[in-house]
Amino acid sequence: MKHSVTFQPSGRRCEVEEGEALLDAARAAGERINALCGGQGVCGKCKVVLADGELGPAGRAEHGLLKPTELAGGFRLACQATVQSDSVVNVPEGSGTESTVVLGADACREVAVDPVARNLYIEPGPAVHGSPGAEAEKVKASLRVKYGMEDASFTLPALKSLHGIMAESEGRLTACVRDGLEVVRIAPGYAPGLFGASFDVGTTTIAAMLCELETGRVLASDAMTNPLVVMGDDVLSRVSYAVSHAGGLDAMRGLLIDALNDMLEAMTGRSGGDGPGTSDEIMETVLVGNTVMHHILLGLPTVQLGVSPFVPAVSGTVELTAAESGLSIHAAGRVYVPPVVGGFVGADTTAVMAALWPFEKDITTLVADLGTNGELVLVHEGGVLAASCATGPALEGAQISSGMRAAPGAVEKAVVDPDSGEVSYRVVGSDVWSTPGRYSGARGICGSGIIDIVAGMMRAGLIDRGGRILLESGSQRVRPGQGGEPEFVVAQSSETASGNDIALTQSDIRAVQLAKAAVAAGVGILMEESGVAGPYRLVVAGAFGNYLDIWNAVSIGMFPGCDPKNALQAGNAAGDGARALLLSADKRAEVARLAGCIKYLELSTHPDFQKRFLEAMSLP
Amino acid sequence: MKHSVTFQPSGRRCEVEEGEALLDAARAAGERINALCGGQGVCGKCKVVLADGELGPAGRAEHGLLKPTELAGGFRLACQATVQSDSVVNVPEGSGTESTVVLGADACREVAVDPVARNLYIEPGPAVHGSPGAEAEKVKASLRVKYGMEDASFTLPALKSLHGIMAESEGRLTACVRDGLEVVRIAPGYAPGLFGASFDVGTTTIAAMLCELETGRVLASDAMTNPLVVMGDDVLSRVSYAVSHAGGLDAMRGLLIDALNDMLEAMTGRSGGDGPGTSDEIMETVLVGNTVMHHILLGLPTVQLGVSPFVPAVSGTVELTAAESGLSIHAAGRVYVPPVVGGFVGADTTAVMAALWPFEKDITTLVADLGTNGELVLVHEGGVLAASCATGPALEGAQISSGMRAAPGAVEKAVVDPDSGEVSYRVVGSDVWSTPGRYSGARGICGSGIIDIVAGMMRAGLIDRGGRILLESGSQRVRPGQGGEPEFVVAQSSETASGNDIALTQSDIRAVQLAKAAVAAGVGILMEESGVAGPYRLVVAGAFGNYLDIWNAVSIGMFPGCDPKNALQAGNAAGDGARALLLSADKRAEVARLAGCIKYLELSTHPDFQKRFLEAMSLP
Repeated sequence: MKHSVTFQPSGRRCEVEEGEALLDAARAAGERINALCGGQGVCGKCKVVLADGELGPAGRAEHGLLKPTELAGGFRLACQATVQSDSVVNVPEGSGTESTVVLGADACREVAVDPVARNLYIEPGPAVHGSPGAEAEKVKASLRVKYGMEDASFTLPALKSLHGIMAESEGRLTACVRDGLEVVRIAPGYAPGLFGASFDVGTTTIAAMLCELETGRVLASDAMTNPLVVMGDDVLSRVSYAVSHAGGLDAMRGLLIDALNDMLEAMTGRSGGDGPGTSDEIMETVLVGNTVMHHILLGLPTVQLGVSPFVPAVSGTVELTAAESGLSIHAAGRVYVPPVVGGFVGADTTAVMAALWPFEKDITTLVADLGTNGELVLVHEGGVLAASCATGPALEGAQISSGMRAAPGAVEKAVVDPDSGEVSYRVVGSDVWSTPGRYSGARGICGSGIIDIVAGMMRAGLIDRGGRILLESGSQRVRPGQGGEPEFVVAQSSETASGNDIALTQSDIRAVQLAKAAVAAGVGILMEESGVAGPYRLVVAGAFGNYLDIWNAVSIGMFPGCDPKNALQAGNAAGDGARALLLSADKRAEVARLAGCIKYLELSTHPDFQKRFLEAMSLP
Repeated sequence: MKHSVTFQPSGRRCEVEEGEALLDAARAAGERINALCGGQGVCGKCKVVLADGELGPAGRAEHGLLKPTELAGGFRLACQATVQSDSVVNVPEGSGTESTVVLGADACREVAVDPVARNLYIEPGPAVHGSPGAEAEKVKASLRVKYGMEDASFTLPALKSLHGIMAESEGRLTACVRDGLEVVRIAPGYAPGLFGASFDVGTTTIAAMLCELETGRVLASDAMTNPLVVMGDDVLSRVSYAVSHAGGLDAMRGLLIDALNDMLEAMTGRSGGDGPGTSDEIMETVLVGNTVMHHILLGLPTVQLGVSPFVPAVSGTVELTAAESGLSIHAAGRVYVPPVVGGFVGADTTAVMAALWPFEKDITTLVADLGTNGELVLVHEGGVLAASCATGPALEGAQISSGMRAAPGAVEKAVVDPDSGEVSYRVVGSDVWSTPGRYSGARGICGSGIIDIVAGMMRAGLIDRGGRILLESGSQRVRPGQGGEPEFVVAQSSETASGNDIALTQSDIRAVQLAKAAVAAGVGILMEESGVAGPYRLVVAGAFGNYLDIWNAVSIGMFPGCDPKNALQAGNAAGDGARALLLSADKRAEVARLAGCIKYLELSTHPDFQKRFLEAMSLP
């Protein structure tokens, strides 16, 4: 006799025979319900609530896994409860399997959680007479029958542990399977918990996340200064260090790996009861970074990255064993490093693209990730062209007379009144706009503030098209500074934390011009090479991009051809992308395809670069 | 303009355009010519001799790679010489690629050499401006273009070495590629030489071969006593040792691996100028052994092999890295261990089957590999059924009063005159049959001699069907021995090395009856389970099988249903099979399929076993 079962809130519905389990009914209806143990009444994840109708009585598994209050409230386990009449069943959030994570800030993208490693509960049973198949073959058979996994293999340590665990647990165990192929860890009984970590190794900052692989949940995150800053601020100084110091490459790799291991330990300690007890429970790791960081992390030679044509040793995906990586993860853990695009456009840019892909068809899009080095990717009519431009440190507030990082006290937004030339600004850590002469706690200017001020000075007529500060403009804020170098006072001494004026000097403005000219020339050449004439959508990624006023960046000519109405901020897209690659096998496949499509363009040797760069030095 | 080119001695022929290289003509004609460097005029392997017609003049590569005497004799390199007229070309032996090895002694099988690892010479060229692809991508592109290899990957050590080698060799290098997929080693320039080793780890003896992977040539071989004999003669005593000694498994594994490494070193030292300089040039290794040796070699627990139902931890193919194996081969080398069949029927039986497969259709075949343990495999109408029988040590001449191994001085063949009861025999190391009373140097009797004597005594009426020695027969050779136990004198004191009689006692004959009954009961059950009624072809493998007189073995009832006219000896089939698995990827694929088809039958718990065993104790 057949009954209809309706699942809420999805409304999915099917007809099943009386006596079938609700989990089977859900499968028939296309309703996806979490059953980590494969529907064997062990994990207790497939909780549902009976809203209408009748189910078979709760058995031992349900009494064991559901609290009395839950049983009283109509909670049941879908894998155990049987259909006895037409029924309506509510599927609470958390019982569904369609977990997704959202990436890319404004450029919002959903990624379905589908990790390369999974925990699979099986019951191959103990060895018995008359069924003399090898223990490993029994595990394989269970994986085939329960999870449709054909021909799994085993790592040697998993094989070695198998007999003891089969004996201890009477043949009930949880197999951690990678790529649907290889059993990499075996634990007795039902053993939930599967963890991964992702790292975005920037030139200056390393950011990390510790995630639950099966849900995508971030259990802890961490950030620290890249220990290699002592070898120099930019990537070329690290390449020089490796060339000029015997063992320099190994030393730098050691410092980096130690730092990553410290972060793993710190995150593990903060991850709470649901997290890994120690970092060696981490089964999967993703590393991204620019080409130089990438090569140092892998221990690959970097000497060829110090000279034109800046050829990486490898650009394809690299996978490392735990031992090869040096990370203190599970011995059978693996480290995935996505492809490098080319030149200095590294695996971090690939991660940015992973976070933002796919782009809308028919909308030409420029992705810009700006820091000491700027990475530009232009997506146009199915073609993807990438380039790297040396923007210098100005956009990160470095090598600017009053520059600083976007830390508390940094002027991160500023407005220059086009008529009076007066300035109002906001500092990081405050929501209030400043009032001239009143204390604001300003300590310096960060990259986004610098762009705002240059754009404002331009509109107020305080600089000419060549970037020269016009002392003759008559503005109170413009004056000759130290050594007679013209400067523009952003914050007066009474406003600042130090009690000294904060000003932008003529040299600072030159540095901004150099940076924006490098970006603009790069954008121009990418457009030319891609045959893009019209406006494009701009997506700004990275920490600097979070603060940047895109209208001002466009107004100083940084993004020629951009319509700022159409621009988006993508937040920490490289970190998001690394997490997406940790959580989704599909993303990895997508990135492998994408890497085959991205064409890398070396700007430094492009015949038009010098001309375009000099032209772009001017302000519009 | 087209010309015809004929290759001798094959007679293959084609038409090609004037100016094409002979190597291309050979490809068009289906003539396979060796071109290890991919036809780039570097390896000098594609030597041919012009017999008739005209070729373009020899260039720099040919003058460099051919001796003046060769050039004068008409030798040319097929990859360099161009077709200028209708021509006839001789392809000397050694220039063809169809190298095959022959296995299985009488049951002769050819295996085409097709190893999983290959050395591929490529010229990706140095880094240049305008071609900024990563170094690894250039290598991949060369492998794709030259060898049709899609999407190769790299081991991390190969990647790390790449930049230095590209710089040193101006982008000419030899990539060692495994499975057509993974670059595991890179050497500068054209670097021939690729080596592998195979081991047959028997309970008593370990045999090894060192081979050139690309030709199949055996460079050296070695054999030694298994160091684990100190833990006991049979496999069960080794299992007990592991159970009763803390760290016993690791200790046994260590002894074995040390022995294998000693053999690798010895073989490398004897392999000459063409061989590997050190054992770490060995890229591929095959290990076979019975289930207990297999588990000990892999470090897998053996405790479950000591108790019924004798369940192996794993039966599928296992592949180990060099580090996992403990072998002193190349760090990127790999160890392949073929599947175990089941119970004690191990990877050595799989290797036997690899050496003998495929069997003729429609001919039911029994493969017997007899030693302390007997392995039986019955192939019938596409089904393959395997079993193991505990024959005890008698067939190896052990635990027999005058027994010994088949070493010099052992009576290995014997004839008992059916009328007079007189004995003539031959000892290992001599071609001469003995004369009663004349010195023969006999030192003892080995397994094949024991079978001959029991069969001869049977025919001469010196024992009854129950195996009782008939003192009442009146034969001079039959007498009460020590403690009155009847015995049969094989060699008189004047003939023997020790000056004492060599005799077979009543207990010895009982031991032979036990052994043959175990085999016969196993054969009977395999026939019953496979539905075999009629006669089968017998193939006897293993060292014992080399000496065994199959007619006598059949006459004492060891192989019920066997027609001895149809029997074959397969020599050292396990060692041959291990070598085949070293040299041929196809063989590995075949063995994987085969292992899926072989059904293992546990005899000790079979309901008919006891009855059949007791019945088979009688002599026919």
